Amino acid sequence: MSIHEEYDRVFKALSSHVRRQILDDLKDQPLTTGTLCGNFAHLDRCTVMQHLKVLEDAGLVVAERRGRERWNHLNAMPIQDIHDRWIGPHAAAATARLARFKQAVEAR
Amino acid sequence: MSIHEEYDRVFKALSSHVRRQILDDLKDQPLTTGTLCGNFAHLDRCTVMQHLKVLEDAGLVVAERRGRERWNHLNAMPIQDIHDRWIGPHAAAATARLARFKQAVEAR
Repeated sequence: MSIHEEYDRVFKALSSHVRRQILDDLKDQPLTTGTLCGNFAHLDRCTVMQHLKVLEDAGLVVAERRGRERWNHLNAMPIQDIHDRWIGPHAAAATARLARFKQAVEAR
Repeated sequence: MSIHEEYDRVFKALSSHVRRQILDDLKDQPLTTGTLCGNFAHLDRCTVMQHLKVLEDAGLVVAERRGRERWNHLNAMPIQDIHDRWIGPHAAAATARLARFKQAVEAR
């Protein structure tokens, strides 16, 4: 898989509020699939599992089996990657553009 | 449109390599649709226009008509927004986790 396809997959995985919420929930600690499903009481278990699968395919969640439980761990490295290589530089350029604009307005 | 839906739309727009490339091309200067289509010689004009439409709907590109030409401007504010509110904090947490891990390994 090329780096472009990897990034496509990560951005696609992040394009759902439910999936971003799952990652937020996993930020401080791994959680079992049961707990995660409980956090999304308005969604049926099957839907949450499908979202988890998309996150796993994008490398954002790593699952670990312990007995009958499935523990879901956040892997934030792909997020850091798109941050460092794409989002960060664009955000910095936006900030710099805004600063230049402010200077130009003030210099009038 | 809620903030969640807005973010969904921005991440979705960024989930295509061609669309990220268009934004990269617009980073330093606005370009006409004709020039952009020329930059993607392997794609037909109609496909590039569809990608531009997705970027426009996500607020990432603002089009300006000058006579018969259509100039496309990058609007990086939505990128800065997802950077500041979502990507940045997750990337920072990943860096902090890695630093703690390194410390733990070195303390052994």
